[in-house]
Amino acid sequence: MALIEKNLQSLTLPTEPNSLYAPKKYIIESGGKRIRPILVLMSCGLCGGDPKDSIPAATAVELLHNFTLIHDDIMDQAESRRGNPAVHMKWNEATAILAGDGMFVQALLQLQHLPSTVDHKRITKVFLDGINTVCEGQALDMDFETRDNVTLDEYLKMISGKTAALLSASMVMGGLCATQDEETLNRLNVIGTSLGLAFQIQDDWLDVVADPDRFGKRKAGDIYEGKKTFLMISALDSCSESNRRKLQDYMKHLPLNDEQVQEVIEIYKNCGVSEKAEEVSRSYYRQAEETLEQFADSSYKEDISNLINYLKNREI
Amino acid sequence: MALIEKNLQSLTLPTEPNSLYAPKKYIIESGGKRIRPILVLMSCGLCGGDPKDSIPAATAVELLHNFTLIHDDIMDQAESRRGNPAVHMKWNEATAILAGDGMFVQALLQLQHLPSTVDHKRITKVFLDGINTVCEGQALDMDFETRDNVTLDEYLKMISGKTAALLSASMVMGGLCATQDEETLNRLNVIGTSLGLAFQIQDDWLDVVADPDRFGKRKAGDIYEGKKTFLMISALDSCSESNRRKLQDYMKHLPLNDEQVQEVIEIYKNCGVSEKAEEVSRSYYRQAEETLEQFADSSYKEDISNLINYLKNREI
Repeated sequence: MALIEKNLQSLTLPTEPNSLYAPKKYIIESGGKRIRPILVLMSCGLCGGDPKDSIPAATAVELLHNFTLIHDDIMDQAESRRGNPAVHMKWNEATAILAGDGMFVQALLQLQHLPSTVDHKRITKVFLDGINTVCEGQALDMDFETRDNVTLDEYLKMISGKTAALLSASMVMGGLCATQDEETLNRLNVIGTSLGLAFQIQDDWLDVVADPDRFGKRKAGDIYEGKKTFLMISALDSCSESNRRKLQDYMKHLPLNDEQVQEVIEIYKNCGVSEKAEEVSRSYYRQAEETLEQFADSSYKEDISNLINYLKNREI
Repeated sequence: MALIEKNLQSLTLPTEPNSLYAPKKYIIESGGKRIRPILVLMSCGLCGGDPKDSIPAATAVELLHNFTLIHDDIMDQAESRRGNPAVHMKWNEATAILAGDGMFVQALLQLQHLPSTVDHKRITKVFLDGINTVCEGQALDMDFETRDNVTLDEYLKMISGKTAALLSASMVMGGLCATQDEETLNRLNVIGTSLGLAFQIQDDWLDVVADPDRFGKRKAGDIYEGKKTFLMISALDSCSESNRRKLQDYMKHLPLNDEQVQEVIEIYKNCGVSEKAEEVSRSYYRQAEETLEQFADSSYKEDISNLINYLKNREI
């Protein structure tokens, strides 16, 4: 963690033009859990490498992640991020679009600093394929807003992109700084993807069950906004015909009011979608843990195992 | 040209999610002069390589160029592009931001298809440094809008980024597909940069002197919009104190009306800025030509020479 922060803070970005570089500094310094860069370093260690060799890759994925937040906040018209005004609110949309683009370039340039033993072409491909899948996930998510027939398979494809792809890329990139063994790299891909799916479905589930003070988000915020979450899609899939019509009707007149949200929560309870979400999320966490088990014991393996436990048990 | 079109049209992009890939197809099929990819192929040939080897790099720069157009049109709130509605007008801003991001990824992925003899790390660095300089140029251009003390040096720095950097990167990338000789690559950099500066200053100059029917833009459009062009900055620098105050006052209340535009053109005439622009543009074209002369004779050398002549003599 200290390694990552030191590197992120000491990135020698130019100071001019200020409108291009100030927003980058602003969002990087606004914090974040830094889960992706930590996964890069730990995966490198897990595969027998020296995590220091993978620092440029760790910096790259964190810059990339922050770039996606800047652009996502414009697309979603979000006003704040990490308790501060979103970049497009603090400056303006044009500045936010351009600062994001510039940050994307800086992310890729980090890979120039990897040791020459790392296959630059290959690690770049893993990174770019990951980013492309994130873009596809974001496009699906936006498409879902205007559709009322989203299937659970489509939802899983969306979160495979939007949440899981960059976690998987982070782990494989860390691995590529230490090994070229395909079986090992495939395992890292499975762990990263499973973690991402588990995390996102858990997020959907925590929306209705978590204590908002500890979870840090408005209780049932997803329901108020009419988001197509795992819970909503499962409910539409398994509830009675009359409830389905009610849900579909609600989704057409957003945002919902308090009374409607209570009714939706009631419907969720009746068809047991919270339990289903918890179960599916836990099974993905288990897949991550079982795949991790196949690696040789090391302090890095323990670290990743602890990280999985930390994520699994956040809130409640 | 045929090679480039064939490659651009046959890019096997997925069709889903449609909102991510349809805008890319739309802007690619809307045409353009394809100057950058042509420069890639010709530069490869100029350095003794087989232009076919550089096709992935040519496709990359054209995709990148089209990505910048999508995002620039949002930032500039432009309504049309190449006679069609701009992407953010045909779809919406969120779709245009995301489609641009996705196109950026596709541009970089093209470099994966280069022959293994090409140094992937180095050609990627040239490309990314070029894009970063384009971003810096765009940021300066936006900053200029709210400033009334832009110097000619700052203007040259802005167009070095916004216009010249990608032309230079195109030529150096083409060269890198054939040679690693530093002197040769430096020459390509000089030609590309000079061409970009010459082209942009000529563009500023054609705005007031060209026949709008042949130039394809509204006569004096830059003056109506109060753009900080080579002409405007030179005029502010060299005209009388009273005229300077008049120009600065006009720039505060945009857009200008017909009468004001006529007065500005009159001021331009009085201080001879059109002649100065023409002279500076021609001297950059000359620098490009003289640097090209240093290469061994070949059909590619002739092709580039013809391209320079075509650009130099467009309109009038």
